[in-house]
Amino acid sequence: MFKVPDHQVAGHQAGGGKLGPLVDDSGHFYKPLQSDQRGSQELAFYRAFSTDTRIPDHIRKFFPVFHGTKLLEASDGSGLSPHLALEDIVSSRINPCILDAKIGARTWYPQAAEDYLQRCLKKDRETASLELGFRISGLQVHGNKETGVWKPDRTVIQRGSVDETKLTLRKFVSSNPSTDSDIKPDCCFASTVYGGPNGILAQLLVLKSWFEEQTIYHFYSCSVMMVYDKESLLQGKKQGAQIKLVDFAHVIDGKGVIDHNFLGGLCSLIRMISEIVTGPST
Amino acid sequence: MFKVPDHQVAGHQAGGGKLGPLVDDSGHFYKPLQSDQRGSQELAFYRAFSTDTRIPDHIRKFFPVFHGTKLLEASDGSGLSPHLALEDIVSSRINPCILDAKIGARTWYPQAAEDYLQRCLKKDRETASLELGFRISGLQVHGNKETGVWKPDRTVIQRGSVDETKLTLRKFVSSNPSTDSDIKPDCCFASTVYGGPNGILAQLLVLKSWFEEQTIYHFYSCSVMMVYDKESLLQGKKQGAQIKLVDFAHVIDGKGVIDHNFLGGLCSLIRMISEIVTGPST
Repeated sequence: MFKVPDHQVAGHQAGGGKLGPLVDDSGHFYKPLQSDQRGSQELAFYRAFSTDTRIPDHIRKFFPVFHGTKLLEASDGSGLSPHLALEDIVSSRINPCILDAKIGARTWYPQAAEDYLQRCLKKDRETASLELGFRISGLQVHGNKETGVWKPDRTVIQRGSVDETKLTLRKFVSSNPSTDSDIKPDCCFASTVYGGPNGILAQLLVLKSWFEEQTIYHFYSCSVMMVYDKESLLQGKKQGAQIKLVDFAHVIDGKGVIDHNFLGGLCSLIRMISEIVTGPST
Repeated sequence: MFKVPDHQVAGHQAGGGKLGPLVDDSGHFYKPLQSDQRGSQELAFYRAFSTDTRIPDHIRKFFPVFHGTKLLEASDGSGLSPHLALEDIVSSRINPCILDAKIGARTWYPQAAEDYLQRCLKKDRETASLELGFRISGLQVHGNKETGVWKPDRTVIQRGSVDETKLTLRKFVSSNPSTDSDIKPDCCFASTVYGGPNGILAQLLVLKSWFEEQTIYHFYSCSVMMVYDKESLLQGKKQGAQIKLVDFAHVIDGKGVIDHNFLGGLCSLIRMISEIVTGPST
C-alpha cells in the first residue's frame, strides 16, 4: 500500500534501506519526522500554519495541504515511526516535470548555532545560493522519445553558475532537455508553463506580493517546487503548471520584519524566468 | 574655503586631525579617496556610472552628481591628496534632517577575501543588518526648541533591535525626537516626509522597481540617505524630502543577476516606512 515515490528530485530519498518519504494511492505523501529538532519544528510549522487565519486563501494554495501525522513502518525498516501526512503534489500527474529551487542566499537564521551556521555558509558559498539568491536542488524533465527523462546529477545542478542555472531553467521547459551542451534547449513549453495568466511566473508574482507584506514567518532553507505534466500539456488539457512551497524544518518567527532573504531570492528567480518568457530565446 | 561639513551622520569624519570629507560654498562635497582598493573602486564606479547610458534619468537622480576628482589639502594635514568631487546633498538645506541606512543583510560580496568576509559577517550579526536587512548607520533630526538637534550615538543606533529601529524611523519624522523612552514620537511630519506622491516612500518604490530589473551592479555596503529640511517644512516650502544612494567602494559587477541582497533589504525598509505612513501611530 505504501511505496517509495516515483518522482522525487530533492531531499532524503527512501529505497535501499534508507529513510525517506512514502506515498499511497490516496494522494498522500508521508514525510518521516526527522528525529532531531527539525522534525518537531516542521510539525509545529504545519500545525500553526494550517490554522493561521492571517493566511489568505490565494496564498494558502501554494502550500501542501496538511493531514496531520501518521504512524507508519519507516522505509529504513526501523519500525513504526511518525510521518507528516501531506498532499502528494505530483500524484495526479502522468509524466510530471519537477524543479526544486531552494530560495534564499542564506540558508541559516541569525540565531543559529555557530557550527550549523558555518556549515550552511560553506554550502551557500559552494553552491549557487550566495550568488543567485537561490539554488536548484534538483529536477526532472520528460523530454522526447530520444532524450527520455532528463534527471541531472543534483550535486552538479546546485553548483551551477549563473549561466548554467539560466540554461537549466530553459531546459525545464524544453522538449529536448539534455546534459549535452551542443543541444540548444528549444524552450517550446516556456509560454504555456512559465507564461500566461495562470503560469508559473504569474504564481510567483502573487507569492512575491505576499512576501513584501508578511512579517509572520521567515522561511529558511525552504524550496519552491514547480510542477507541470508533460502529458496534459501535449494533449492540450487544462491541468496547468503549479508552484508549491515545501520543507519547513527551518521556519522561524518573523517578529515584525519581512523575510528579506527569501524575498530577494524569489525576485532573482522571477527575474530569470521572466527573461525566458519575454526575452530572446538565446 | 574648504571646511568640515556641519551635517555628517555616518562614515569617517574630518576634524581633530583626522581624515574625512570637506565641503566648499559651491555646493560640492569632497570625499578623500581611500588609499587602498576601496578608493580606486569607488572612483571606478563613479566614472563608469556617470557615463553609463543604461541608467534612466529617473534613477540617476538618486545618485550624487560626480564632478571628477580634485587634489586638495587633506583634512588630516597629510598634504595634497585626491578627493572625489561630488554633489553636496545637504548644502542647500538650512536645518537638514538626515538618516543614513546601510542596505543589505550582507555587507560582503561572494568573492571577498576570507578575513574581510568574517569581519563583515561579525558586524552584520552584531548590528541590525542580518535581522532587518539594513542598519541605520546614523541620523540627526532637528527637533523643537526644547529637544534641539537629536543626534544619537551611532554605535547604539546601528545595533538597534527591530522595535528600536522602527522607533528611530518614527523619531526621524517627529518634532520631539529624544533618546528618552518616555517621550512618544509624535510623527507629525510622517505624511509630508515619508508620504505623498513625491515623498520618501514613493521614491524608495521607484528605486525598488529598478532593483527588480537591473543586473548591472551589485551594491554592497551602500547606503540610502534620506534628507529633508525642517525649516522649509515649517514654512510650507516646496523643497521636499529626498533620497540619495551613497558609498560605492564595494560595488561589483552584477553579471546578469539582480542585486537580491540590496533589494531584500530595501523592501524591508520600505515595509517599515509604509507601516508608519499608513498604520496606527503607536
